[in-house]
Amino acid sequence: MSQETLNLLRRGTSEIIHEAELADRLSAGRSLRIKAGFDPTAPDLHLGHTVLITKLRQFQDLGHQVIFLIGDFTGMIGDPSGKNATRPPLSREEVAVNAQTYREQIFKVLDPDRTEVAFNSQWMDKMNAADVIRLAAQHTVARMLERDDFHKRYQNQQSIAIHEFLYPLVQGYDSVALKADVELGGTDQKFNLLVGRELQKGAGQPAQVVITMPLLEGLDGAQKMSKSLNNYVGIDEDPREIFGKLMKISDDLMWRYYELLSLQRDAADIKKMRAQADSGEVNPRDFKIELARELITRYHDINAADRAEQDFKLRFQQGGIPNDLPEVAVQSDGGEIQIANLLKDAGLTSSTSEALRMIKQGAVKFDGNRIDDRALMIRAGSEGVFQVGKRRFARVVVR
Amino acid sequence: MSQETLNLLRRGTSEIIHEAELADRLSAGRSLRIKAGFDPTAPDLHLGHTVLITKLRQFQDLGHQVIFLIGDFTGMIGDPSGKNATRPPLSREEVAVNAQTYREQIFKVLDPDRTEVAFNSQWMDKMNAADVIRLAAQHTVARMLERDDFHKRYQNQQSIAIHEFLYPLVQGYDSVALKADVELGGTDQKFNLLVGRELQKGAGQPAQVVITMPLLEGLDGAQKMSKSLNNYVGIDEDPREIFGKLMKISDDLMWRYYELLSLQRDAADIKKMRAQADSGEVNPRDFKIELARELITRYHDINAADRAEQDFKLRFQQGGIPNDLPEVAVQSDGGEIQIANLLKDAGLTSSTSEALRMIKQGAVKFDGNRIDDRALMIRAGSEGVFQVGKRRFARVVVR
Repeated sequence: MSQETLNLLRRGTSEIIHEAELADRLSAGRSLRIKAGFDPTAPDLHLGHTVLITKLRQFQDLGHQVIFLIGDFTGMIGDPSGKNATRPPLSREEVAVNAQTYREQIFKVLDPDRTEVAFNSQWMDKMNAADVIRLAAQHTVARMLERDDFHKRYQNQQSIAIHEFLYPLVQGYDSVALKADVELGGTDQKFNLLVGRELQKGAGQPAQVVITMPLLEGLDGAQKMSKSLNNYVGIDEDPREIFGKLMKISDDLMWRYYELLSLQRDAADIKKMRAQADSGEVNPRDFKIELARELITRYHDINAADRAEQDFKLRFQQGGIPNDLPEVAVQSDGGEIQIANLLKDAGLTSSTSEALRMIKQGAVKFDGNRIDDRALMIRAGSEGVFQVGKRRFARVVVR
Repeated sequence: MSQETLNLLRRGTSEIIHEAELADRLSAGRSLRIKAGFDPTAPDLHLGHTVLITKLRQFQDLGHQVIFLIGDFTGMIGDPSGKNATRPPLSREEVAVNAQTYREQIFKVLDPDRTEVAFNSQWMDKMNAADVIRLAAQHTVARMLERDDFHKRYQNQQSIAIHEFLYPLVQGYDSVALKADVELGGTDQKFNLLVGRELQKGAGQPAQVVITMPLLEGLDGAQKMSKSLNNYVGIDEDPREIFGKLMKISDDLMWRYYELLSLQRDAADIKKMRAQADSGEVNPRDFKIELARELITRYHDINAADRAEQDFKLRFQQGGIPNDLPEVAVQSDGGEIQIANLLKDAGLTSSTSEALRMIKQGAVKFDGNRIDDRALMIRAGSEGVFQVGKRRFARVVVR
């Protein structure tokens, strides 16, 4: 095990518990079992999720075995206290469908030959009540209440149902069942990953090395990437959409994304690139293009990356959208206007029938997104760039 | 349901939650299911345990069904945290043996025809991990930590293993499985009995009425009766032993025992008897004899009660032990003296060989207890009444 290997694995991590143990296991020369757990619900991955998966890929490239664990046992229970309406129990069929969706997405990064997709229902379904009690005996109430979120809720007199104390134990037990050498998770998972260490010790196994990865910042560079904050890049999004979103991020955030998401560029590369950008030798925009291309190539393919880049350059660089757009105001009728009327009133088409024909041909865009709905109503107060065909543009305000 | 019935059931109880609910159920006229749970370990009952059993008998006399629940499920797990060495797991065979011992003891009070002996392994063994999680979801950490002993341990930073939070839920679930109308327990069980109420509500059942019984004071009249404090009367003890112990209790304690243990005397009787004793009309000793006779008759038989009473009177009342005992000091040899030498030196036998013969015949007693060991060594500092045959007594001090 070289220092280089350790540097690669250390890159971007938040914490390794403990690095010396990781070095020891790597030195043993055998293929390690690298576990990461995922929620069985709605696996629509965005770049935030791929931080972990990218790190898993680095382990695979070193010859190790990845265990992609889907926590279906708890998913199939849902929230039995009934307080969390967003966690209805999943059926076995839904789990299977979601697992397939996961596979389609993760195998864009992971090597299927070195990936085992596991389900914790495989062992949890076999446990009886006595087994659960024995499991629960291996942890104390006080230590569980030290977990950040439990601690806060207890202090604030927000209720914690007792089964919530069992879930970290189930997750920890998964490491026992899988004989994990290493478990990866977000920083918010640290407590649960450490429970795994303890349960393994209790079961006479060597305690897994715990690696926490930071939560990726979203496009705003401030809050963590999440769908609900709408600051995300979904890996299944339209490549042009991904390209456009990534071109808009700050330079600082670009370097962060390189560190956590790039497999092509190693830490030394990134350092050099950063120096080039700082000295003005290279326009940071070029590195943004490279990052966007790497990620689109990974999650789609190289042709999609080419097309997205061309499209972007056409629209925003090679005069695709003129710098001096005409600005037009159109009048709504009772707070709304039909798309065809809007295009005609804005002078972008000669008639509503031409407008409808152009929409049908897929030649009408609003802020770069194609409009397909010929009956679309636009509300008063809306504003943005409408494009018809390759040449006709106008910034339109609906009054 | 008469007021008289309610008065009988209320007698001696510590708390009824809620009395109006109990009255309602009794009024319904059907046979109620009266649950009481017992530990599956070492069922060697003393009068303290019989407080509950006596109350169960009162329910039976009113036509209700008693469920004598043996908590074998948890007993067969033991203490999985390994901290409590006195709770090793029981085997199924040990449970069966203990259950048989229970039956032999409780059917001296309870009517077997109206008693169902149940084991919670019957339903708990069928529960899987998901069932336990659903059960655990029905209670909160905060409420569990309100339980007196948990609260104290948490405050004092003594560890509470998480499975200890599951046991009250198991006990509560037993009430759901048994569809209990009423559950009886000691005052120290109140919290757990209330968990049963909640789980029944959660399961759509009417919540059981909870009746707590006080913990019976031991012979010292102060601490609760327990084997380890050696202030107990075991129901399987020698009747003469029981008689002797009960004759020594204080008058106040006698009334307490009447209230909690007597089935022959109702509250009105006891009130009248107390007045007779207070006015000097009846010697309280006579009531003590009656109590001792009732209990010995119940746990042994009436002949045993007769013999115990005669024996007691012979020894302590009809001059069995003279009031003016000779006091004798005998000299030990290096801190000890053999029983045969002691008897001879004290003038109770003419020789050591007579002493040995008398012991063999079972004719030698120390403080009323027969001495069987002919090699017994008595230590210097010992003091008490030795008796040989019917007539020879001496208070002996070993120097």
